[in-house]
Amino acid sequence: MRALAFLDGSLADSEAAHLRVDDLGLLRGDGVFETILVAGKKARELRPHLDRLARSAAMLELPAPDLAGFERAARAVIDAWPEGQEIALKLVYTRGVDGDPAGTPTAFALGVEVDASIRQAREQGVSVVTLERGFGPDLAERAPWLLLGSKSISYAVNMAALREAARRGAQDVIFTATDGSVLEGPTSTVVLAKDRTLYTPPSTIGILPGTTQYALFRGAEKAGWTVKVEPIAAVDLAQAEGLFLTSSVRLVTRVHTLDGVALPDSTAVHRELTAAYDSVYSG
Amino acid sequence: MRALAFLDGSLADSEAAHLRVDDLGLLRGDGVFETILVAGKKARELRPHLDRLARSAAMLELPAPDLAGFERAARAVIDAWPEGQEIALKLVYTRGVDGDPAGTPTAFALGVEVDASIRQAREQGVSVVTLERGFGPDLAERAPWLLLGSKSISYAVNMAALREAARRGAQDVIFTATDGSVLEGPTSTVVLAKDRTLYTPPSTIGILPGTTQYALFRGAEKAGWTVKVEPIAAVDLAQAEGLFLTSSVRLVTRVHTLDGVALPDSTAVHRELTAAYDSVYSG
Repeated sequence: MRALAFLDGSLADSEAAHLRVDDLGLLRGDGVFETILVAGKKARELRPHLDRLARSAAMLELPAPDLAGFERAARAVIDAWPEGQEIALKLVYTRGVDGDPAGTPTAFALGVEVDASIRQAREQGVSVVTLERGFGPDLAERAPWLLLGSKSISYAVNMAALREAARRGAQDVIFTATDGSVLEGPTSTVVLAKDRTLYTPPSTIGILPGTTQYALFRGAEKAGWTVKVEPIAAVDLAQAEGLFLTSSVRLVTRVHTLDGVALPDSTAVHRELTAAYDSVYSG
Repeated sequence: MRALAFLDGSLADSEAAHLRVDDLGLLRGDGVFETILVAGKKARELRPHLDRLARSAAMLELPAPDLAGFERAARAVIDAWPEGQEIALKLVYTRGVDGDPAGTPTAFALGVEVDASIRQAREQGVSVVTLERGFGPDLAERAPWLLLGSKSISYAVNMAALREAARRGAQDVIFTATDGSVLEGPTSTVVLAKDRTLYTPPSTIGILPGTTQYALFRGAEKAGWTVKVEPIAAVDLAQAEGLFLTSSVRLVTRVHTLDGVALPDSTAVHRELTAAYDSVYSG
């Protein structure tokens, strides 16, 4: 099941052709996106996702996106979706057709089902490998043209890293910087739990600020955790009481194996953090 | 003017919609491409371009492309184009629709006109800035998941670098590695002329092997030049007798200004190298 809507709120057939071949989103990966979890007909962290879409668009010097239009499109997809089923809701925004003098962006919301593999990962956790990302933590601020920390649709490397993980018998990846510090997953944020404190790296090192990580930190603080945004050394990942990947659709996913080595059992911490995260959306 | 053809050789309306919004080429920049110059109804370096398309596809673990089909599509575009006008002919190949169990790639050839700015650059040369690319020359071989040296459609960074150049009053970019060596342009290969020798960096440092650079080297060797593929230090760029960016559509373009400083006049060397390049396609 898929549902497609445009920014005027109109629904369209997701299996029909809607894009020209000379859309710069396709020819150049020149665009940005967000993926939002919709549960119980509610889009989680909608405002932070829209703000981040606008932030990514600004990094790519795209026209400011019509956020009210994206909300309309999101609403149309949600309304069209069967009751009781989660949606992975993608908002996509590209530079539009190459050479268009009006520079009209391409924009739509697409709802897709949550993958069975992601549901399984939420329950059972994942095996992760660390992979070099090849840059230092000071590069992003110095070289904004590298678009580090933007959520551009130029995701070929992110997808290749996940294939490399599969080749090594794992399901996901944590990227590391040249100084041995932790960056992020190809589609997730890294969170580490130790001594009743949650850690995540700062986005200034060239990573995407995590909406789910942020929600988790809010919930965890209320539940008595300390939260810290600071650099994490990759060598410390295996020393934690819990290592997690967070993202909109996978929620708080436990890492049970790192680079082929089983980590200490973190199911109790995972249960507690999942409850803290859930508390943000209940009641 | 644009002309679009699919791999069965059929022409289609380039201004109509042909792609689904959930094409992985658009959602993830997950695909590869080539741009070929067609002059006098002949596609230049067609075989090297097709081979490189296949090489990029292999790096992204896409199915092997139907090269005969791409040749058919290219032929259809060329046949449909007005006599006497050059074509920038793009071959595009993506992973196809997300979740398609058959995994059928999206593939087409698109002819577009050669930009006026490129024609001007061929004649008048360009002003170039060096920009950090943020990685070392040994990374590509160690970390194939970073897809360095593939021609993927995830080109958002390449486009952002060109905008940064414009911001600095220049028209193009030469990327440098963390060790101060020269990589490539966002859409071109760097060639340096000194003491009757042409230099270009080896593709093993994580750059695209240049089809036009290769043709130029063939022609220049016949004209008595020595050609060398070896690392180039960025500090040596300004010391050359000629600095050039080569690409299919811009041909051999002279760099007249580097990081705001005028380079020694290289018009004579440029004329000689252009003749050597042209000789590959004449007679």
